[in-house]
Order: sequence, then structure tokens, then C-alpha cells
Amino acid sequence: MIKKIISMPKIFSSTKDIGLPPGTICVPVKPPQEKVRITVFDYTESYVTENELKDIEECFCLRDKASITWINIDGVHDCDLIQKIDAHFNIHPLILEDIVAVNQRPKFDDFEQYMFIAMKMIYWGKETNAVESEQVSLIIGPNYVISFQEKPGDVFEGIRERLRTGKGRVRKMGADYLGYCLLDAVVDNYFLVLEKFDDQVEELDEQIKTEANGGVSRDLHVLKRNLIFLKKQVWPLRELLAAVLRSESRLVKKSTHIYFRDLYDHTVQVVDTIETFREMMAGMNDVYLSMISHRMNEVMKVLTMFASIFIPLTFIAGVYGMNFSYMPELNWKWGYFLALGIMAFVAAGMLVYFKRKKWF
Amino acid sequence: MIKKIISMPKIFSSTKDIGLPPGTICVPVKPPQEKVRITVFDYTESYVTENELKDIEECFCLRDKASITWINIDGVHDCDLIQKIDAHFNIHPLILEDIVAVNQRPKFDDFEQYMFIAMKMIYWGKETNAVESEQVSLIIGPNYVISFQEKPGDVFEGIRERLRTGKGRVRKMGADYLGYCLLDAVVDNYFLVLEKFDDQVEELDEQIKTEANGGVSRDLHVLKRNLIFLKKQVWPLRELLAAVLRSESRLVKKSTHIYFRDLYDHTVQVVDTIETFREMMAGMNDVYLSMISHRMNEVMKVLTMFASIFIPLTFIAGVYGMNFSYMPELNWKWGYFLALGIMAFVAAGMLVYFKRKKWF
Amino acid sequence: MIKKIISMPKIFSSTKDIGLPPGTICVPVKPPQEKVRITVFDYTESYVTENELKDIEECFCLRDKASITWINIDGVHDCDLIQKIDAHFNIHPLILEDIVAVNQRPKFDDFEQYMFIAMKMIYWGKETNAVESEQVSLIIGPNYVISFQEKPGDVFEGIRERLRTGKGRVRKMGADYLGYCLLDAVVDNYFLVLEKFDDQVEELDEQIKTEANGGVSRDLHVLKRNLIFLKKQVWPLRELLAAVLRSESRLVKKSTHIYFRDLYDHTVQVVDTIETFREMMAGMNDVYLSMISHRMNEVMKVLTMFASIFIPLTFIAGVYGMNFSYMPELNWKWGYFLALGIMAFVAAGMLVYFKRKKWF
Amino acid sequence: MIKKIISMPKIFSSTKDIGLPPGTICVPVKPPQEKVRITVFDYTESYVTENELKDIEECFCLRDKASITWINIDGVHDCDLIQKIDAHFNIHPLILEDIVAVNQRPKFDDFEQYMFIAMKMIYWGKETNAVESEQVSLIIGPNYVISFQEKPGDVFEGIRERLRTGKGRVRKMGADYLGYCLLDAVVDNYFLVLEKFDDQVEELDEQIKTEANGGVSRDLHVLKRNLIFLKKQVWPLRELLAAVLRSESRLVKKSTHIYFRDLYDHTVQVVDTIETFREMMAGMNDVYLSMISHRMNEVMKVLTMFASIFIPLTFIAGVYGMNFSYMPELNWKWGYFLALGIMAFVAAGMLVYFKRKKWF
Amino acid sequence: MIKKIISMPKIFSSTKDIGLPPGTICVPVKPPQEKVRITVFDYTESYVTENELKDIEECFCLRDKASITWINIDGVHDCDLIQKIDAHFNIHPLILEDIVAVNQRPKFDDFEQYMFIAMKMIYWGKETNAVESEQVSLIIGPNYVISFQEKPGDVFEGIRERLRTGKGRVRKMGADYLGYCLLDAVVDNYFLVLEKFDDQVEELDEQIKTEANGGVSRDLHVLKRNLIFLKKQVWPLRELLAAVLRSESRLVKKSTHIYFRDLYDHTVQVVDTIETFREMMAGMNDVYLSMISHRMNEVMKVLTMFASIFIPLTFIAGVYGMNFSYMPELNWKWGYFLALGIMAFVAAGMLVYFKRKKWF
Repeated sequence: MIKKIISMPKIFSSTKDIGLPPGTICVPVKPPQEKVRITVFDYTESYVTENELKDIEECFCLRDKASITWINIDGVHDCDLIQKIDAHFNIHPLILEDIVAVNQRPKFDDFEQYMFIAMKMIYWGKETNAVESEQVSLIIGPNYVISFQEKPGDVFEGIRERLRTGKGRVRKMGADYLGYCLLDAVVDNYFLVLEKFDDQVEELDEQIKTEANGGVSRDLHVLKRNLIFLKKQVWPLRELLAAVLRSESRLVKKSTHIYFRDLYDHTVQVVDTIETFREMMAGMNDVYLSMISHRMNEVMKVLTMFASIFIPLTFIAGVYGMNFSYMPELNWKWGYFLALGIMAFVAAGMLVYFKRKKWF
Repeated sequence: MIKKIISMPKIFSSTKDIGLPPGTICVPVKPPQEKVRITVFDYTESYVTENELKDIEECFCLRDKASITWINIDGVHDCDLIQKIDAHFNIHPLILEDIVAVNQRPKFDDFEQYMFIAMKMIYWGKETNAVESEQVSLIIGPNYVISFQEKPGDVFEGIRERLRTGKGRVRKMGADYLGYCLLDAVVDNYFLVLEKFDDQVEELDEQIKTEANGGVSRDLHVLKRNLIFLKKQVWPLRELLAAVLRSESRLVKKSTHIYFRDLYDHTVQVVDTIETFREMMAGMNDVYLSMISHRMNEVMKVLTMFASIFIPLTFIAGVYGMNFSYMPELNWKWGYFLALGIMAFVAAGMLVYFKRKKWF
Repeated sequence: MIKKIISMPKIFSSTKDIGLPPGTICVPVKPPQEKVRITVFDYTESYVTENELKDIEECFCLRDKASITWINIDGVHDCDLIQKIDAHFNIHPLILEDIVAVNQRPKFDDFEQYMFIAMKMIYWGKETNAVESEQVSLIIGPNYVISFQEKPGDVFEGIRERLRTGKGRVRKMGADYLGYCLLDAVVDNYFLVLEKFDDQVEELDEQIKTEANGGVSRDLHVLKRNLIFLKKQVWPLRELLAAVLRSESRLVKKSTHIYFRDLYDHTVQVVDTIETFREMMAGMNDVYLSMISHRMNEVMKVLTMFASIFIPLTFIAGVYGMNFSYMPELNWKWGYFLALGIMAFVAAGMLVYFKRKKWF
Repeated sequence: MIKKIISMPKIFSSTKDIGLPPGTICVPVKPPQEKVRITVFDYTESYVTENELKDIEECFCLRDKASITWINIDGVHDCDLIQKIDAHFNIHPLILEDIVAVNQRPKFDDFEQYMFIAMKMIYWGKETNAVESEQVSLIIGPNYVISFQEKPGDVFEGIRERLRTGKGRVRKMGADYLGYCLLDAVVDNYFLVLEKFDDQVEELDEQIKTEANGGVSRDLHVLKRNLIFLKKQVWPLRELLAAVLRSESRLVKKSTHIYFRDLYDHTVQVVDTIETFREMMAGMNDVYLSMISHRMNEVMKVLTMFASIFIPLTFIAGVYGMNFSYMPELNWKWGYFLALGIMAFVAAGMLVYFKRKKWF
Repeated sequence: MIKKIISMPKIFSSTKDIGLPPGTICVPVKPPQEKVRITVFDYTESYVTENELKDIEECFCLRDKASITWINIDGVHDCDLIQKIDAHFNIHPLILEDIVAVNQRPKFDDFEQYMFIAMKMIYWGKETNAVESEQVSLIIGPNYVISFQEKPGDVFEGIRERLRTGKGRVRKMGADYLGYCLLDAVVDNYFLVLEKFDDQVEELDEQIKTEANGGVSRDLHVLKRNLIFLKKQVWPLRELLAAVLRSESRLVKKSTHIYFRDLYDHTVQVVDTIETFREMMAGMNDVYLSMISHRMNEVMKVLTMFASIFIPLTFIAGVYGMNFSYMPELNWKWGYFLALGIMAFVAAGMLVYFKRKKWF
């Protein structure tokens, strides 16, 4: 048993609060106790500054500078903040609604002034030991990128390091390349989840060979559910990236295009791998079922034959237990031993017969 | 068992009265006892009036005014009414036939003067405890929307409230946006049904783990039927909305287009979720079957072993029940106890053997 | 059991006589004993005439008149007749071959002077109690429609009535609308067959709940075969009508176009419903199998437990049937009743044990 | 059992000799003992000549005449011959390689001067009693058709007869029509194979109803393999003919186009029928499995009940076989008959119980 | 059992080192102990030179000559080398990353100056006895081809020989044809793997007929896994080649285009064959399951009947073993033999009954 899997991912979650006017943004279920964390990178090829802001307005001045600005916001439950961004960057209310409604399907929208991409950051939950997801929304403008995450902790540390040190190409290129880097980091992380998945599939495959109890069936089911969850999150990403490639937005420069195509290829590979897992698990289910039935048959066959051998013996004993007054064999001197001999002979004969029929 | 599910949705219902000339509108099966209810909203950004009409003709004057008019009609069985609308708004007879034939597949037709959209309002029937549907037909003109429902009671209360209070964007925008709002309200309600569905799937999944009686199989079947029903109603909506987006009707303004695209995304999400439910329920069926077979095997195995242990014992008893005149063991003083001892030994030996073979 | 289903539809039938030159028309297997029946309607908005002809040539004069002519031919085995039509209306020989070869796949061909449509009239055979089909071929010209049927009896009576009485739109519009009406009548009839189908599916679903004998499985199989047959006939109709809509033939006037689109929608609905039936019957098969196995298990479990209880009892009786000379219990005064008591105790103990394990 | 099916078709066969340079033509595995047979038809509307040639060069003079020339070559293993054709008709080496490599997938190539079509002639092998195939390759030029077959014996006899007698259209039309006729003859023959297939499917379906032994399962498997083989050969034909229709080669005249479209329709019908067979056989497998399990259950149930009735009876006999010194019943005068009576009563009671439970 | 299959292919392997900046090339896991082997062919139609280089720079002078240069590099773990090629041939860093990340999905990229193709060389691993793959990357420029392989040993020996001897077309044509030849050699080798596969499928099919042990199920599973692996490697090749055909790169000359189309056809055939194997193995699984169940049933049936015959006999013996003081039969002279006779009669009667019911 994969003992550590204790929960299944929650497949369904409603997208937005039903019945509210479209474009309604702020309906935090619980008071936003946790403070939203805002970090800003501002850089050109020659310099970089990194700040943690108290107030989003502090960075609004950066919009009109030539430098590239990356505003990362951990937490989407602060209405004020969202509305300020709305006002300043002139984002369509529906997009803001999509940012707040974190159970969005991966989505791409191409406006004149900015592109919007919402996708899922997938990771293997340490506590739940199940696949978990967090929505990451990106607004990519001509010289800024705003990223929204549901909670602190992400897969962007490598990019931050590269921004700080100027290693790689990121400082030399525009906001579109930064956007690509963020998406790439998210998709790269999918491979980690798939690797974890692969481990569990292999482990389960191993178990099927050796054990065949009800638990394996259950584990297979839980794993399948995780896979369905994964597929639901990743599948739409493929068309999303195809749409980005098709869109010919002037925000994506020609030199960055090839990077997005590379990202598209990676996503196709993730989708392919998920599909492969599905096929493998279908095959494992078949093997499991035939294993169970094979083993059960083995047990039943041996036990039934066991019974079959004793039944005629008991019959013979029964015959000589009859109380007829005239039963010649009963008075023979070696009658008893003869009877025992016949029994042994019958038992041996049946064993030979079963053996020959290859019944065991 | 999901005890409350008592009925399956009726999958099939004929679309129109067969053999009648196309475009025939009025064939109420039963006399329209229930009075058709007509409510009219007339509004611009600055004012709003709300009326319940006795006669549809009262609102015809509104057509040529600049204000937006929403005529909602609960009940489609009043021939007179339908024909009056026909005459006044110049609707194609086939469209009117589609409004009356409530078992229509979701449908979109784009005319010069108006757009026609027929779709299903889905809700979880309180009495039947099954998915139910009601046809909602919309005629969206340049400055009016006519909505037809089969019976009173709908999901548009929120929109009415917003019209009355002027909250949100609806009063500021045109008839196309009102049409969008109505569709959005219908699709939003799908999420409620899916949520209900999700509850039942989870409940059933829980039961499969603990029980394995015939009822679960039946419940799974009923749930699947509800899902098939749901799918049949929702699936065509996707292409319907894609057709609306493609149509480039001059009735849908550019600013409303993004809302329809958002609606399309929601519908895709509904379709995705239904597909996910299907996969989950297929998986549940597999688990259920292997659970049933696993448990049955457990029972059979224990019982068979039980029998297997006693069979040789009974044989031994049978041997010493034989009436041969010369059976030396019978006269031994401790023969009886020896026989009992042998029996105990055989029984213990077999238990050890079974244990070692991991048969229980 | 659906007792009335006595035959399965014959799935396969060869299209034409193999090895003959393409475009060969007349190869009646048996002499055409049955006389071909020719009826002609000739009408404009102001008048209508209806005739039954002896000879097809009688109506040829009508071709060049402005009035609309509908020639209906019941029977396609009269070579002479077909060749006369060929000569007069200038029909391509391959089309005539398609009319005669009644096992044609639904087909649409668009020529300059006429359109050819071959499709299946489906009905529920009263004698065979299975789905049956008859080929209906239409040649739609600028002012004439020629319809071919395999045998007398059709679904066009309503249209004839409307032609006679002038009710509806049919007399006011052209040959294309008449063609549409004929197709519509055929497709409308599909709904009747589906309704019949639905009845049988529901009946079978009811039986699965209550009985579980081999007959249900067989009935399911027969019904499935009927469904496959139906699907094979109806499926291509969808693309056929899509092709008609795409063709932009000048024979289909703009005002008739919307009717064909409506017909297309109906066909899609038929196809959808067939697909839904397929899913339902797949589900029913699953339920049936798990019901069978559930019931069998119930029987086996009870019987096995029954045996299991008596096996130790018989063993005890066997022990006291042994003939050892020194068996103290045998001489106890209440030994016999004690033995009976032990037996009762063992039996009761096992019943409690089984009960506690929830094995029955 | 379909006793005559003795072999399965060989699904896989490598296309060409691996590792050779592309365009390599002649690698006959065994020396070409069998002589290649060359027959030539040369005809216009007014005359026809038919010759069997010793040497392919004899007919090369015909290429530049206005008459239509059909060169049929039985056998593709003669390198010399192929290379002569190459040189004279200027065929691309890859095409010649495809002609020689007889395990080609159906293929269409459109060159300026000629079209190349490779497809499979399918027939039901008399000796193997399995579906067999032979590659037919056509090179269709402006006024010549060259057809290659693997071995003598084909389905073109009807065409030859029509060429000789001038019956039908073939002598009046060009090389493209002749090419169509050859393809049509091949596709027509598919229907014969499908008919044979249909017989066997029906026969098997009949058997499933009455018998349920392991042989049926095997036969189903063999039939399925034949179907997979068939599908593999026929499926690509559909796109092949679609490609011919799309190609707009100047070699296919407008008047011939409709014939190719008709051929396309026939191919679609073949593909449809194969798909239908697949569905039917999947259904038959389900029925077979549930029949097997139903019958097995019947046997087991009766036998188990049989045993269940005797077990308590044997127990009663065992009780009165005990040797207790004080067993009052033993000394009753009618004790024995009473015991027999009780046994009869118990047996009858159980039968009634089983009957009531509907267990048999 | 296919005893030689000892391992399953590793389905999943992460594409690149996660978290590194995109375009990062060199992260060899282990120090590159094995020396990278560089071989260079330089040829025109009239001459050819073949060299093994120590240093890649030796061949850089060839780039600007008119002759065709083929640089083959065995091993992709030498950073220095890769970077030198980067600098000299001006290759995009992402492409170089793809060459180094050997678990790439087959991929095609079309630049102005060169085309990049990455695909899998598939072979049947001698040691693992499973399908193995090695990435082959090609950079095809106007007058050079650079091929990268993971390790020495390949399928290009035939091409080398043809280059040396000038046999075939390869020396006469350009770099695009050389590229085609390399791809063709790789795809040709797929047929060898499929042939091997076919052998194992046939072998397994044979075993299913004769044996039915758990091992067959396991073998089927392993074979299926190999097939899934194969499919994952080959499937994308189809679109890759379609993309090459569509790309209209000026690097692929018109005369070479037909060769690429031929290659595409071969790939489609490979994909078709894999699909056919899948269907066959699904069928085999069904047969295997029904065989197992059929044989088990046979065993159980015979054994159960065996038991059923003895149960009434034992009952009769039990009856006459009862100790009633008045049992008239016991004192009959021939009572014993009569009892034996009755037993024989009952046994014979039951055998006849079972026989008649066709239970064995």
C-alpha cells in the first residue's frame, strides 16, 4: 500500500460566487487576516532593485519608466489592493474577477495593452500527500509583469536569483521574456510532480506482482483520482500556449517567440506523459484483476481437490459402518486393513488423475 | 445508499408534434389552465420601470423607444400571445416553433434583426431529487430582450435586483449585455447543480469503501443516468456560445464580446467538470466491482477452509465407525483418546499449512 | 423479456451487383410482379391536381410548366420507367444506379440542374418487431421533385393533405421547400422510432432491477443491434445535411435555407439521442452484470454457510459413532442428550459468528 | 465453431529491405522462377486489340499513339522489366520501389505526367480460410494505365469483357476512367469479403446463443484478428480517394470526377461496415461472457443445492449412528421409519424453501 | 512465458534540469569520462574524405566550402564542444539545450539558416530485452549536416558505405538529401523493432491457447508497457514529418521533397502498426481472461460433480449405519448387496442426468 496517500484532491470547486454581477471582484469568504505580501523587482540590463512594499502605490511610478518592473503579489483576497491595480493599470474587471476566483480554468486573454494568463502551479502536497494546485495569474504589459499567487511560497526563486545576479538572459530581455520565465518555472515544476507520480506508479506496479489485497485496488483508485485532477489542471494549458503562439500580440517580441514555442513543446510532453500514465494504470488495473482472480482460483482449486479426495474415502468408511447382519467383508481377518488399503489406493489414484489433468 | 434519489430523468422526449407542417406553433396538449405571466422591465441608465402585464400588447409601444426593454414570459402554451409577438416583432415562425417545442436542443440562430438562443435551465429537482431542466429561450433585439420560460420561478432574481438598484454595469449597457446576464445566470446555476452532484459522488465513493451491496451499484447507475442527462443538455451549449462568438452579429457590441467569451470559458469549465465526473464514476465502478469480488472471496475462502478442516476429521471418525470384526485399535484402552488426538493434530496441521500459504 | 423482439435487423447488405459496369441500372433479382405506382401532384399557389399515372410519360409535359410537380414512385424495380426518367430529365446514370441500389449509404449530390438526396425512412416493423428501413431517394429540380420509394406506404400523407388543402406554406413555396418537407417528414418519423426505442430501454431497465436471467442479456444484445443498425442509417444524415447547407446550390432558395438548417438541428438531436441510448445501454450492461454476480453471490453464500454449519455437527456425530471399546461418554446416562446439546451449541455459535461477520 | 477458419492473417510484414538506399528497386528474395505475365489492351472507341507480350518493349510504341493502352503485369519480381518501364515511362524510382515492396500502405502520389495509386485487393483465401490481400499498383498516365499485381488471378475479368465487347462506357472514355474501373472492381470485391464476414459473424452469433464452450471465444478472437487485418488494409483507402478527389490533377477529367466520388462513397460504406462489425463483435463478446457465466452459475447452483439437501440428511443419519448406550429413539418400534420420515420432511422443506427463494 | 523479457522500459524521465535558466546547455551529471567521438565526411559528387577528428575546430573550415559536410558526434556531454559549435554555426541556445537534454520529445524547428530535428533511434536492447531508445539530433544547414547521438553505435553504417562507394544517389545530392537518408535509416530500423515485437505477440498468442497461468498475464502487461513506450517515442514523429513537409523551408529542395513524403508514409505505417498491435493485445487480454475462466470452470465443474455423486451414496451408507433396534433391511440376507446395488444405481443415474444436461 502507498501508505502515505491520505487524501484525494477535491475535484470540484465552484468558480465564482454564483448570482453576483459579472465583473464583481471582492468577496473574501473569511476576513483577510493574512497580510498580502508585495515584492517588486525593477531592472534594466545595468541595474536591479528589489523591494518589499507596504502599499502597492509605491511602485506605480515605475510604470512609466523604461525599466522592466515585476510586481509579485502573494494573496488575492485584498479588495483594496486589487482595485488600486485596476485603476492604475486599467485592467478589465472580468480579468480581475478571474484573478480573485482562484478555481479558474487555465486561461489566456490578449488585450491591446496587456496579456492575461492564468494557470495552475502544481505541487505534491507534503501534508496531504496528494497533488495540490495554486492559481498563478500573470498580467504581462509592455514593460511590467504583475504576478498573483494565492499564498506565499513559489517556484520562482531561481528567477529571482538570476535577476539579482544578472546570470542568463533575463536581465537583457523584456517583460515578455520575464513572463515566459515565470511560466517556464511553473511548467518545469510539473515534471517534478510527474516524477513523484512515476515513483508511486512503479511502487504500485511492484506491489501488484507480490500482493493482491483490497488495498491495492483502493490505492490505484486514489492515484487515478490524482491523475484526473492533474489532467484537468494541465490539459487546458496546451491550448492556452497554442493561443499565445497564435495571438501575434505585439507584446511578444519575435526573439521571445521561440521560447514560448519551446514552452509549448514542454507542455505537450507533460500532457503526453499524463496520457501515458493513464494507459499504464488502465493496464495495471487489468493485471491486478487477473492476479486477484488467478490467486483466488489457486486457493479454491487446492481446497476443492482436497475435499474431493476425502469424499470417496469417507464413503467407503460409511459403507463398512453399515449394520447389515450379513456383510462378508466384515468378518474377513484382514478386512479392515484391506479397506484401509483400498482407501489409500483410491486417494493415490485421484492424486495421479488430478496431476495428469494439470489441476495443480 | 443515496436514499433521496428516487427518480431518473426522462432522457427522451420528442421535439415537436410529428407530422405537423413545419413552423406550426400552437399545439398545447392540455388546455392552458395556468395563466401566462408577463413581466416587463424598461430602463435606461437613468430610470427603470417594472410592470406585470395582463396583455402583451401593452408593452409593444416600448419597442420603438430608445430605452432597453426586457419582456419575460413564464409559460409557452398561450397561442394567442405567441402569435401576437410574432406579428409585432416579426419573428420567423420556425423560431416560435422552437420556443414552444420545449425539448429543443440548445440552439443559436442569428437573424438580421434579432438573435435567438434556446438553452436549458438546469436545477436539482427538490421533489424528484433528480436533475431537471427547463427551456429558456431568448430573443435578443437591438433594444429589447424577450425571454420565455416554461414555468414561473427562475434564476434571474439577482439580475432583477441589479436592474432595480442600478448596481453593476447592467443599466449602463445595451440589450446584448442584458442577454449575456441572463445566459450567465443560467450557466452560473449549472455550478450549483455540479456542486450537488459532487456531494453525491463523494458520498457514494465513501460508501463503496465501507459497504458493498447491490444498492451501491444501482445508485451508481442512477447517478450516471443523471450525468448523461446533464451532459446531453450542457454539451451543445459549448458550440452554441462558440457560434455566438463567431457570428459577428452587429447586435453584440464589441464591449460585450469579452463577456460572452468569459461565458464561453465558464461553459467549457462545466463541460470539463462533467467529463471529469464521468471518469471518476467509471473508476468508482471498477473499484466497486473489485471490492465486491474481494469481499465475496474473503467469505468463500474462510468458509471453504472451514469445511476443508472438518472433512479429514470426519473421515477418521468414519474409519473407526466401521464394523470390521478385527480392528485392533478399537480394543486399545486409549484408542479413543488417541483417535481424538490424531484428529486434533490433523486439524492443527492444516491450520498451520493454510496460515503458511497466507490463505487467511 | 421483451418478448416481441423476434428478429435482428440485417446489418449488412451489398450495395450493388458486384462486377457490373458502373452506372448499370437495372438488375431486378425477381421479375417485377408488383406494379410500380406513380402518383403526381401538380400545383401552384392557386390550384392543385393529383393523379395516379399508368405511364410516366403522361407527366413529362409538366416539366416545362411554371407549376411545381411532385412525382412519387413506389418501387424501383421497373427498368423501363427508370430509363425513361433518365432520358427525359437528363439524370446522371450513377444517380439512377444509386436509386436502384437500395442499400445505399445516405448520400447527397449537387448537380447544376438538380440535387440528389438518398436517405433512409426508418420505422418499427410491426411483424419483425425490429427497426426496419426503406430507401427514399429525392431528385429536386428547379420546379419538380421526383421521389422514389422501395414499396408503397410512407410518411408523406401529411404533406399530401397540406398540398390538397393548401394549409401551411407548402403551396406558396417552390420545389426546394417541397423537398425539405419530404425530408422533414422522414426525420420526424425517426423520433417515433426513438420513442419506441425509449420504451423498450426503460422496460429493460425495469427488468434488470427485478430479474436477472440470461434472457435480459440477450434482449440487451438484440436492442443494441437495433441501435447499431439505427446509428448506421442515421449517422451519415448529419453530414449529408451539412453538405446541403454548404453546397450553396442555386436550387435552394435563401428563404428555404433556414428550414434546412432546422432540419439539420433535428438530425443532430436524433444523433445525440442515439448516442445517449448507447451510453445508457452500456451502463445497463454494467448494472446487469453486477446484479447477476450480486445475486449469485447471495445464493452461494447462504448455501455455503448452510453446509458449513452442518459439517462440524456431522463430525461430532461421527465421533460418537466410532466403535472403540472404551469411550466413556457413551455410557453416561445423559451422554446422548449432552451430545445433541453440544451440537445445538456449536450450530448456534456459528450462526452468531457469521452474523457478526455480516456474512448474511 | 467456425471450423474452417484455420489461420490468422499475418498482421505485420516489413515494407522494404531495411538498410538499402532509398529508391532501390530489385531485391527478389528467391529467384523469379515464375514468369511475369504481361497483357496489353489497346483501344479507342472504334477498335480494341488484346495481346500477351513476351517482352515489355513490344508495347512501348503504343505510348505515343492516341489510343488508350492498358498494360497489366502479373508479378513484380522481375527487375529487368521494372527498370525498362522506369526508363521508358520516366517513373520516379521511389514509386517503382513502392510497386515492388508489396507490403505498402495504400498510397496515392500525383505527378505531373502520371498518378500512382497502390491499394490492396482483398479476397477470402480458399485454402487458408482467412482474409488475404494482394497489392495492386496503378500508374495512370494521360493515355495509358499500367497495373501491377503480385500474382496471376484478379477481379478485372469483367472490365476485360467490357473492353472486348465495347459494352458500357469504358471504351468511350479515357485512361482516367479505365483507372477508375480497375479501382472500382477492387472495391466492389471488398463487399464480397464483407458478405462472407457477415455470414461468419451471424453464424457465431447463433452459436453463442446455443453453446458456450471455449471454442467460441477463440473463434471470436480469430474473426476479430481478420477484422483488424481488413481494417488496416481498407482504412487508408478512404483518405487515398479523398486525396485523389482533392488533387485536381489534370489527368482526371471533369466527367470522370463524379465516378471517383462515387467510389469514395463506396469506400466510406466499406469502412462504416467494418466499424459496425467491430461494434457487433464487441457486443457478442459481452453476450458470450455473460452467457458463460450464466450457464456456469446454473450448473453450480443446482449442484450446490443438491449437496445442501443431503448434508442435513446425512447429519441425521449420523446422529442415529452414534453408539450411546442410552438413546431412547433407537428402541422405539417405528423409530427407524420415523427417522426416514423426518429426513424426507427436511428434504421436502428445503426444496420448498429454495423454490420460494427462486434459486432454481 | 517470454522468459527473456526482464525489464520494462522506464517511461518517465525528466527533460531537463529543473530550475535552470532556459537555454542552459551543459550540466553533465557525471564527469564526461568517455571521450566524445567526432567523425567527418566531406564530399561532392567527385570526391569523398572521411576523418576522425580530435578537435571539432579542425572541420570548421569546411563550412564555407561548396562540398557537403557531415559531422557526426557520438556523445552530448562535452560542454566545450557544444559551445564551439554554437559559436561557429550560430545555433540558437535553446536548440543546443534540446540536443543535450536527451529525453526530448521528437521535435522540429525551422530557422532561416538551418533546420533542427530531434528524434528517437529505437532498438531492441540485447541485455535488457526491452525496447530502448537513443536520441538523435540533426542540424541540417545549406551544405552541412551535424548529427548528435548519445553513444557510439548507430544505424548509419549503410549510409557511410554508400558515401564511400558513391553507390545510390547520396553523393549526387545536397545536405537535405543526406539529412533525409539519416532519418530514413532511423525509421527503417523501427520496422526491425516492430518485427521483433510481432514475434513476441505471436508467441504470446500461442501460449494463451495452450497455457493459462498468471505469467501470461504478466507478460502481456510487460509487452503492453513496451508498446506504450514505443508509441510515446514514435507518435510525435508523424506530426514532426508533417511539419517538415509543410514548412517549405528553402533548405529542402523540391527534388528531395518527395523523399520526405515517402518517409512520412513510412512513419504513418509504423504508427498504424503500433495501433494494430494495441488492438491485438486488447483482444488477447479478452481471450486470456475468458480462457482462464473457462478452464477454472472446467475444473470446478468436474470436481463439484464428483462430490455431488458421492454425497447421496454416503447418505445411504449413513442410513444403514444407524443403530435403530428395528431396521428390517438390516436382517435381509442380501440387504448389504441390495444397498450396494442401490448406490451403484444412484451413481449411474446421476451420471446420466449430468451427461444429459451437458454438464461435462
